[in-house]
Amino acid sequence: MKIIVDAFGGDNAPLEIIKGCAMAVEKFDDVEIILTGDEETIEKVASENDISLDRMEIVHAPDVIEMADHPTELMKSKKDSSLAVALRLLADGKGDAMVGAGSTGAMLTGATLIVKRIKGIQRPALAPIMPNASGKFMLIDCGANAECRPEMLVQFAHMGSVYMKNVMGVENPRVGLANIGTEETKGDELRKATYELLKNEPNLNFIGNFEARDIAFEGADVVVADGFTGNIILKTYEGVASMISGKFKSVFKKSVKNKLAAAVMLGDINELKKSLDHNEYGGAPFLGVRKPIFKAHGSSKAVTVCNAIKLTREFVSSDVIGKIAADISGEMSKRDK
Amino acid sequence: MKIIVDAFGGDNAPLEIIKGCAMAVEKFDDVEIILTGDEETIEKVASENDISLDRMEIVHAPDVIEMADHPTELMKSKKDSSLAVALRLLADGKGDAMVGAGSTGAMLTGATLIVKRIKGIQRPALAPIMPNASGKFMLIDCGANAECRPEMLVQFAHMGSVYMKNVMGVENPRVGLANIGTEETKGDELRKATYELLKNEPNLNFIGNFEARDIAFEGADVVVADGFTGNIILKTYEGVASMISGKFKSVFKKSVKNKLAAAVMLGDINELKKSLDHNEYGGAPFLGVRKPIFKAHGSSKAVTVCNAIKLTREFVSSDVIGKIAADISGEMSKRDK
Repeated sequence: MKIIVDAFGGDNAPLEIIKGCAMAVEKFDDVEIILTGDEETIEKVASENDISLDRMEIVHAPDVIEMADHPTELMKSKKDSSLAVALRLLADGKGDAMVGAGSTGAMLTGATLIVKRIKGIQRPALAPIMPNASGKFMLIDCGANAECRPEMLVQFAHMGSVYMKNVMGVENPRVGLANIGTEETKGDELRKATYELLKNEPNLNFIGNFEARDIAFEGADVVVADGFTGNIILKTYEGVASMISGKFKSVFKKSVKNKLAAAVMLGDINELKKSLDHNEYGGAPFLGVRKPIFKAHGSSKAVTVCNAIKLTREFVSSDVIGKIAADISGEMSKRDK
Repeated sequence: MKIIVDAFGGDNAPLEIIKGCAMAVEKFDDVEIILTGDEETIEKVASENDISLDRMEIVHAPDVIEMADHPTELMKSKKDSSLAVALRLLADGKGDAMVGAGSTGAMLTGATLIVKRIKGIQRPALAPIMPNASGKFMLIDCGANAECRPEMLVQFAHMGSVYMKNVMGVENPRVGLANIGTEETKGDELRKATYELLKNEPNLNFIGNFEARDIAFEGADVVVADGFTGNIILKTYEGVASMISGKFKSVFKKSVKNKLAAAVMLGDINELKKSLDHNEYGGAPFLGVRKPIFKAHGSSKAVTVCNAIKLTREFVSSDVIGKIAADISGEMSKRDK
């Protein structure tokens, strides 16, 4: 399996990206990597840091897309960027999947324009896997589409279910519609119309409206939202988690006495920290395009990159794309009848 | 000043409500209370718990509105409920303000239908005061209006500013529009249209789009949202805060060793807990109606009820309603020109 990795995407590129790829190659016998980016720099960084480039191929891309660049520059002034080259290689069938930690906007735009949508999919969606009280859940969409129609949310529900089942190993994933109350009549027009569609949708374990208060706890495996609401949930979630963890950290560091007490619990505190760490799940698949594309967290270190490659490997080998395509075309032919 | 209190609203009614009222009367010389609810029960609970009913008047209301009741029942089968009676007393000028801890939906519906809107206000809004990393902020609207137009959000911004300045003592409150990015062009159509209006609005310290990730930190004193988005933020916020605090609590209780270590930091942990406690701020004013109405948290204990009365007292004495009315009518006449 060949996984294309944008070596120049993310805050810690290229070193941590290359390191993460080397870890993945070491770990998974069936994985080969195509790194895109400035060839000379990649080779220099690898040699300076004693990283083997075994089973890694470099495809030269002299340019880098910056966070400040408009996403569409990918098709114009930045068409020789490491990201644009990676996406074109993917579209041309030179690799089985693509992983990147750079600008989300540019990845989404490039994925849609270069790799293109699965037939029948109205809008691809960004779907991060997030930690909750007792495990993990998928939030779909979380920012690819600020405005959505009910039919799009139904497709998000299907795509999320297929991914959670096949990649994350969740049997019969519970799908909840993010809403401001549990009753069927709750929410705005978009939620009411989506509820009507979801409750009659076959091949979906729809559990109804899911209150935002419950998202942090166990209950739904796939939380469906329009991209605006999903992004608000994601960012409120991350902000509050970071604020409160920070507050506890200050207590632990407040005095010598507290520092000593916290040291006693250090193992348990670190374990807790790890269980709440978004990086543990590697990032977010971008669902609805013709090839597996995985967005790793911008702040990814080598371990996260390696995790992202691990999940992308499952993404490919479980044929999520084929299953989504079958699911959607089945849904379409059913509607046509 | 006469404050009407629904003695039968909330999870701990009537005991904690009556107790909280007694605390407030004891604390504030200028406050008198009108309790609504079943007279016999109130007197019995007071005498059994040695609570003085000094400076408290009881207005008999035999019925109680339950969480399961549809809000509009307030006008029909539940018109003799403690809440309906309280709102009618307020509308009739028998008191200066009303405090309740019961069903939010019923309070909002009753406030709009019985007490009525301030002239020019399109929609009243529920506006909780919430804790952040270094203080507090107001989130407006957080559930009264699932669907909003841009003009409503502008009114929310004004009402929130007036309240934060006059009741919470924030000079020149910073108003942020809850959004999925900070740039002017971010968000859905509602956000873009609202941004255009807010940036040209006089008498408002508009600081631009405010990312959900920053809400938990210091930055905006008034966070403006439609009721759907605001409710999603509020509930995600509460859910994540509760989940993470719970996780730390489990670590503190995990073993004898941890329990002993946590005991060393107990004072600091409790202080942290208090700083993050929503109950500290008493609840949420309901802004845009002709009289001050304050929604206390459903789980309010006596201290929270007393806090709610304290804030309601400021709400009345600083003439927030008059100032909102003046602000809105100024805005209207300016638009008419």
